[in-house]
Amino acid sequence: MAHRAYLDWNATAPQRPEARAAMLAACDLVGNPSSIHREGRAARQAIEVARRSVAELVGADPRNVVFTSGGTEANALALTPAIEVGADRAPRDRLLMSAIEHPSVRSGGQFAPDRIEDLPVRDDGRVELDALERRLATLAGQGARPLVSLMLANNETGVIQPVAAAAELVHRAGGILHVDAIQGAGKIPFNINDLGADLVTLSAHKLGGPKGVGALVKRDEALHLAQPLIRGGGQERGARAGTENLPGIAGFGAAAEAARSAATEEAARVAALRDRIEAGVLAVSPSAVIFGREAQRLPNTTLFAMPGIKAETALIALDLDGVAVSSGSACSSGKVAASHVLKAMGIAPELARGAIRVSVGFSTSDEEVDCFLNAWKKLVQTLLKGTHGIAA
Amino acid sequence: MAHRAYLDWNATAPQRPEARAAMLAACDLVGNPSSIHREGRAARQAIEVARRSVAELVGADPRNVVFTSGGTEANALALTPAIEVGADRAPRDRLLMSAIEHPSVRSGGQFAPDRIEDLPVRDDGRVELDALERRLATLAGQGARPLVSLMLANNETGVIQPVAAAAELVHRAGGILHVDAIQGAGKIPFNINDLGADLVTLSAHKLGGPKGVGALVKRDEALHLAQPLIRGGGQERGARAGTENLPGIAGFGAAAEAARSAATEEAARVAALRDRIEAGVLAVSPSAVIFGREAQRLPNTTLFAMPGIKAETALIALDLDGVAVSSGSACSSGKVAASHVLKAMGIAPELARGAIRVSVGFSTSDEEVDCFLNAWKKLVQTLLKGTHGIAA
Repeated sequence: MAHRAYLDWNATAPQRPEARAAMLAACDLVGNPSSIHREGRAARQAIEVARRSVAELVGADPRNVVFTSGGTEANALALTPAIEVGADRAPRDRLLMSAIEHPSVRSGGQFAPDRIEDLPVRDDGRVELDALERRLATLAGQGARPLVSLMLANNETGVIQPVAAAAELVHRAGGILHVDAIQGAGKIPFNINDLGADLVTLSAHKLGGPKGVGALVKRDEALHLAQPLIRGGGQERGARAGTENLPGIAGFGAAAEAARSAATEEAARVAALRDRIEAGVLAVSPSAVIFGREAQRLPNTTLFAMPGIKAETALIALDLDGVAVSSGSACSSGKVAASHVLKAMGIAPELARGAIRVSVGFSTSDEEVDCFLNAWKKLVQTLLKGTHGIAA
Repeated sequence: MAHRAYLDWNATAPQRPEARAAMLAACDLVGNPSSIHREGRAARQAIEVARRSVAELVGADPRNVVFTSGGTEANALALTPAIEVGADRAPRDRLLMSAIEHPSVRSGGQFAPDRIEDLPVRDDGRVELDALERRLATLAGQGARPLVSLMLANNETGVIQPVAAAAELVHRAGGILHVDAIQGAGKIPFNINDLGADLVTLSAHKLGGPKGVGALVKRDEALHLAQPLIRGGGQERGARAGTENLPGIAGFGAAAEAARSAATEEAARVAALRDRIEAGVLAVSPSAVIFGREAQRLPNTTLFAMPGIKAETALIALDLDGVAVSSGSACSSGKVAASHVLKAMGIAPELARGAIRVSVGFSTSDEEVDCFLNAWKKLVQTLLKGTHGIAA
């Protein structure tokens, strides 16, 4: 019990040392970034340094980075009818989103419920591009002005979505594309221009930065969010009022910089750990199902279920055995609910109730993986003993 | 120039050592507060400890504290027609606010511009209670359902508002009272029940906590914010979605606790420093005007102007001389604009353009005050030389 294996990186990642150091340094900056005296200018500079690092992570112009209090707020800021592009100021009148988006997107932002439409996903966990194309064509015929929201990678399955292809379809139909890249950023390299995303959401704490800070990044300065969520002072070029979260933003910048530099190297190592977890799970419990395995996935994530084992029971047993994993998304009230992601993928509810997510990261060790595999073996043997023998 | 005097505490206060230590400790907590495993529960506990400290600062029930990304967001969350009280679910249809509120309140939250009304202030910087009473009576006759927003103390002048008296009037007329207590909290003791405020806004960084975190506190659990600004996960009992700013909240809690314990002692010391500043300014420049001096003020704040000296010129000269002060609010884009507070108090624009705010705090030293007074003397002598002699 002395040693714990933290394998729930998709819920939140341990802070990178660079982020911790930057936060600490920022705590010692006395000024308000809006003040014109020397202390204020020093605080302002720390924010602009971080803005450049975050911009660079996604290949954007620093001027187009709007810092927020996290991914959820960035999604809420993005999902508004009041998106103007240059002289085109008519509101967006429809929000299309995949059925597997995060609850902060699913809540629909400023759109009225009857203006929000779901896009189906395939069995492998990828959005159905054909359905998107058909729907966009119909909407174009009606003169509608859609905003489409599609995540870069799903937080539960790790399945990477066909964002660049979706962007082409969306733009051809006169739409705007928002991409919640919270789970992808720092795990797989991407560039906002190659992706074709008009708006990208990032969260610091999923990539080794502090909790409580995120960003909405615009591809083009001509895109204007005309009705900001939080108004008052003129911070963030008017897109987001309130004294900036200086330590959080500084930590975010340092984490983004570290994640960017180490990305390729970390991805390979992390993928090897994940593959070992999956091989180990299948060795102990061959009838286990790994969700989304046919699709391209994040290197750090696996979501699986073993028929006959409920996630809630497994999580508690694993926790007692020193292993922290989750049953899908942690972004809620601590309650283990049925996964809307697996439901959308057509997974039977009994199996979905057993879904366990194991997610690793840059500092995950081989020993932690061993720790999990030993605990899993013990769990399977205990829980399935006396039912009808272990499937293995 | 080696030593700087930071006398702009109302823009942002240096962090209390307790807050810094709590933030650091929170950075080492790995879990997401929504996760059910041990790491998650430890993170949750840190947040609930902070929630109790913040609640205690204002005499509220911890269940009624909603953490936000700062005071601006808390104000935006509070200023909504969708405030329900128990079974009373009809929306609020009018927002009354004093003319001297902070821009984050002045922006009006979710109220349509034609539903927002200003309340005048007197020469001494206090809201006109008679005008409030008359307006509430008229609105009551029309069956209107007002929300009233009145700050505890003004950020520029430090003038303390007659909140308890206003609360009586508001409640008698069936209204709800929101109090932006950002500048008062930690500087003067108050209790949400004695104040009679239904909703209170707090900001951590004004009382020695970190930037990027605040709270909206409810007096009564029966009051329900039915349309939260940021939706998604079930955090903060559904009032505010998004992974909690764990380090920020921990720092806020520690700062609130420290501010509460030290409040009386700090207030006396700080008031003495402020009085010495005012006496010194008047000694050097007897024609200087101190704004709001006839009213009860925060112990740490003075706002004054010297005819013939522009604030912008003075701020730059003082900054070069090692002293950081401001020209009123810093919560904007760094631009020195005319103060809406002084305008509402009926101060002539020429004089208002000279307004300089000096604000001190728990760690301000006598030497810093000396440093300011010397710089002020030098400034007055330089700027007024050759015009028509110094008034002194």
